[in-house]
Amino acid sequence: MTIQNEPVSNDGLIRIRLDLGYNGTGYFGWAKQPNGLKTIQGELESALIAITGLAEVKTIVGGRTDAGVHARGQVCHIDLPVEFVNEQISRLGRRLRAVLPESIVVSQVTQVSKDFDARFAALARRYSYRIADRSVDPLTLSSVMIHDAPLDLDAMNAASKLLQGLNDFTAYCKANTVGTRIRELQEFSWHRHDDLVIATVKADAFCYSMVRTLVGALIPVGDGRKDIEWPYRILKAAQKIFEINVAPGHALVLEEIYYPAEKEFADRVSSTKAMRSPEEVE
Amino acid sequence: MTIQNEPVSNDGLIRIRLDLGYNGTGYFGWAKQPNGLKTIQGELESALIAITGLAEVKTIVGGRTDAGVHARGQVCHIDLPVEFVNEQISRLGRRLRAVLPESIVVSQVTQVSKDFDARFAALARRYSYRIADRSVDPLTLSSVMIHDAPLDLDAMNAASKLLQGLNDFTAYCKANTVGTRIRELQEFSWHRHDDLVIATVKADAFCYSMVRTLVGALIPVGDGRKDIEWPYRILKAAQKIFEINVAPGHALVLEEIYYPAEKEFADRVSSTKAMRSPEEVE
Repeated sequence: MTIQNEPVSNDGLIRIRLDLGYNGTGYFGWAKQPNGLKTIQGELESALIAITGLAEVKTIVGGRTDAGVHARGQVCHIDLPVEFVNEQISRLGRRLRAVLPESIVVSQVTQVSKDFDARFAALARRYSYRIADRSVDPLTLSSVMIHDAPLDLDAMNAASKLLQGLNDFTAYCKANTVGTRIRELQEFSWHRHDDLVIATVKADAFCYSMVRTLVGALIPVGDGRKDIEWPYRILKAAQKIFEINVAPGHALVLEEIYYPAEKEFADRVSSTKAMRSPEEVE
Repeated sequence: MTIQNEPVSNDGLIRIRLDLGYNGTGYFGWAKQPNGLKTIQGELESALIAITGLAEVKTIVGGRTDAGVHARGQVCHIDLPVEFVNEQISRLGRRLRAVLPESIVVSQVTQVSKDFDARFAALARRYSYRIADRSVDPLTLSSVMIHDAPLDLDAMNAASKLLQGLNDFTAYCKANTVGTRIRELQEFSWHRHDDLVIATVKADAFCYSMVRTLVGALIPVGDGRKDIEWPYRILKAAQKIFEINVAPGHALVLEEIYYPAEKEFADRVSSTKAMRSPEEVE
């Protein structure tokens, strides 16, 4: 727990950053659902309401994850009354761990400047995607996609490299994506670890199902059904095509969200807000 | 699939070896329960009955695992009528994968000599035990034990080494263990992998809850509550003591069962049977 002794803002609220991870199995994603479906945001806000006694606690998240998707490096922020923070902040992490289900783990609670915004201050998000192409380990079934044919990582790395950089990702975004589809794909690479094939996908932001569509376009390159330039040709066509099987959510992990140094929070928030519409998904 | 073209034995049955793994979460262990609780053996025998159309299929297992315990290298054998084997054996693995729940994975189906016995022909069993002492990864929660204090692996390895060899493990067996408590602990060591502390425990055979009791005795050595000779003194006292917290089952994995070459099956089976009572658990 780091307390930075930030001045209280005029509204008597103090901004708190929560770092957390979760096993997404059985959850309908991050975002609260109106119909009572179990979600990470729903569980977390209920726990915060139970602990603070407030009528409402609103979380703002850095990476909205989809149904079944896991997180090791999720970040969100909340605003809490100065009185609660002064008295209770040192116990908040422990109390969250006691109240939350075992599958949601809050690893850090940090008092931050009001300029911090878990969503708009983020510089980039990094995801991993895990595929078993050789043998099936029953211990990792809930977070690994099984693929029946061996994958050629050299081919996949060559094809992925062609997609890196600042591009219009319309072909890899859902058709109903709001706002710009231009993203900077900073890393898209593949390696083996413990007999699993693992993709690393990092970008300034992602549109809905973008990582899973990218992975879905690279698998046929890996097993030889498509040539190395196929995903790049799709990118350049800038049209959604239905030949890509969007890879399933349960093998996707939000690994890390990157933020600038504190003095750059405000600048980053305003430049992101100028670029992205409020309805966009990161 | 290896077909060794063994002669059919007199009873018209052919012995089949099944290699399998499972995620033990939600199962009440390997052994079938009379009260309808979900078990690995129960699911597997039901699947085999459904596929073969036989009234009963009896599995004999190499390592009976307890509730919540996982397996990557489990082995069992069954006897099936020669007519079924001749017609269907090449499809059995595929059909099992289609019928069994996703959490049970049959990786190999092999026709073997009638001298093979998954239980009595085994030379040794190897287990792993996984502990998180630094950070909690929500993806591995269902197969990792969380320990709040950092573990000193040098101390744990020194202490574990003292327990290796042919010893009377009465202190590490359940009080109601049937038959001899003498076991040969062939390996007991600790290493780090992916930020997890992992124990490797290999012996000719294990009595009930022996691995989890050994792990439970080593954890206080690792976090400094006990000295390096403490687990050895318990061994030598040869009495069950209640100061050991038996480690939970969900972090235990049966990794491998070792068998001799085929021509030694019969010798191994008769020497094991002479040493062990039929009620013993391996």
